[in-house]
Amino acid sequence: MSDFSFNKLVIFGVGLIGGSLARALRERDGTRAGRVIGVGRSPATVERARALGVVDAIAALDDVVQLREALAGADLVLLAVPVAQTGPLLERIAPLLDAATVVTDAGSTKSDVVAAARAALGERIAQFVPAHPIAGREASGVEAALPELYVGRNVVLCALPENPPGAVERVAAMWRATGAVVREMEPAQHDRVFAAVSHLPHLLSFALVEQILGEADAELKFSFAAGGFRDFTRIAASSPEMWRDVCLANREALLDELDAYTRVLARLRAAIEAGDAAALEAVFTRSRAARTAWQERGGKAAPGSVQS
Amino acid sequence: MSDFSFNKLVIFGVGLIGGSLARALRERDGTRAGRVIGVGRSPATVERARALGVVDAIAALDDVVQLREALAGADLVLLAVPVAQTGPLLERIAPLLDAATVVTDAGSTKSDVVAAARAALGERIAQFVPAHPIAGREASGVEAALPELYVGRNVVLCALPENPPGAVERVAAMWRATGAVVREMEPAQHDRVFAAVSHLPHLLSFALVEQILGEADAELKFSFAAGGFRDFTRIAASSPEMWRDVCLANREALLDELDAYTRVLARLRAAIEAGDAAALEAVFTRSRAARTAWQERGGKAAPGSVQS
Repeated sequence: MSDFSFNKLVIFGVGLIGGSLARALRERDGTRAGRVIGVGRSPATVERARALGVVDAIAALDDVVQLREALAGADLVLLAVPVAQTGPLLERIAPLLDAATVVTDAGSTKSDVVAAARAALGERIAQFVPAHPIAGREASGVEAALPELYVGRNVVLCALPENPPGAVERVAAMWRATGAVVREMEPAQHDRVFAAVSHLPHLLSFALVEQILGEADAELKFSFAAGGFRDFTRIAASSPEMWRDVCLANREALLDELDAYTRVLARLRAAIEAGDAAALEAVFTRSRAARTAWQERGGKAAPGSVQS
Repeated sequence: MSDFSFNKLVIFGVGLIGGSLARALRERDGTRAGRVIGVGRSPATVERARALGVVDAIAALDDVVQLREALAGADLVLLAVPVAQTGPLLERIAPLLDAATVVTDAGSTKSDVVAAARAALGERIAQFVPAHPIAGREASGVEAALPELYVGRNVVLCALPENPPGAVERVAAMWRATGAVVREMEPAQHDRVFAAVSHLPHLLSFALVEQILGEADAELKFSFAAGGFRDFTRIAASSPEMWRDVCLANREALLDELDAYTRVLARLRAAIEAGDAAALEAVFTRSRAARTAWQERGGKAAPGSVQS
């Protein structure tokens, strides 16, 4: 049982991720929750979060008086916004941050977030503990937020050399209070891992639909697409804006993984062209064994939930 | 309501596909089923089909006396075996076929099946109506056979110029009696369509797992793989033998699709490298719209079932 407590948490971006954190801390046992303030660009969105009881109070991002009041005395700040907005947002709030406030984020990439945070925060970088909760749902927005979203999920912390241990532990304790499992990695390592297991599959899935669309018999092909296509392309229904940003934010690691993948495809192409049944079967057998072992170790996500 | 009837149906390979056809014809309303004979290489497998009541009688593939008796007077024969076995199997049964028997298959590829059938049957090719039921489940074997497996599924008929209209209509009526939707295509067109929407995605999915396996941090990567990876690689748990055979049987169309896909990847790679956000967003937006429209048109398969 966690006994995490806080006085004031400010969440920038009260959608699925930020809203689920708020609900977890307020509704799950074992947390003594203080005030939760939601801040957003869209008044309608943050107002909905307050109406749903997900946050206690709200502030408008472009109102510096409201923003200053929201941040005053906050012990924790979560940035739950698209990664490309991290830098501008930190620049905006840097002058208003108390020295004791710990700031964290929920971005899908980390090297670029760290670079943006260093540029925006300067010496105050010690207050910023980068993190990435590996959780999601197909539905988005604060209405989709769930107090149980993070139970059993991984949250990766990419602590910086400048972070005092107390700040890192504070963010870790917050995530543990949601039921998540906290793991630590270097930003570059994080980006390599997620380039391979998340960003590249998304790119490959979008690419398959794009390829079929480009052919004269696209309609006929779609009309015969079935279960294999459905699963392979489910992630091609993901947000174009988010994945555009992720691809560019994690450009270097993603291109490395894409090039490695293209080499595997070239090897398989050569085997098919040469009629090398043994080589194909060896690859397929290895892949199936690894995929099956992964699933048996618990790779399967809970029903109805999606991890990205 | 169908009013399909037959006197004697011989099924080579009484697994999921053959077993589900037998159960559909025997158990669904509107069909007057005659005798169903199961033939297989493994005595244990066909015996299990008889014990489960899926077939009335069985015959061993390597016993020519049993085989002759099984085929005598059969009005319909289904080959539900891996595509690579089509040629040898047709050679074996060709001398034993009555002139009035209509033979069909359930193979995932068609151009190679037609070529093998022409070589094996010679002038009797008119008796062979190639077909491909687009249905399956993750479970295999006769125990997984379901009378409802084909309800609402597509079955592609690739009628040959030599087929008398009555033979084609007989196979179509058999599949309609299972609840399937019968559609007609040329063999080459069939192979192009399924190379794009089924064979290529399987290859790409096996390739992603193979790529991760080849890297030093494979275990770390698998430990962070989540929902996107799970769906993208579900088909990498498919049968290595079957997919080896499909890749080689449909080599030409699959290589065409793979090359077209590699060109799309190269285009996306260039956009990422150039930081061309607009180009990436355009592709992702198009893909998502097409994938969403496909799903809304009914692309989603029934729960628990898988179409390959």
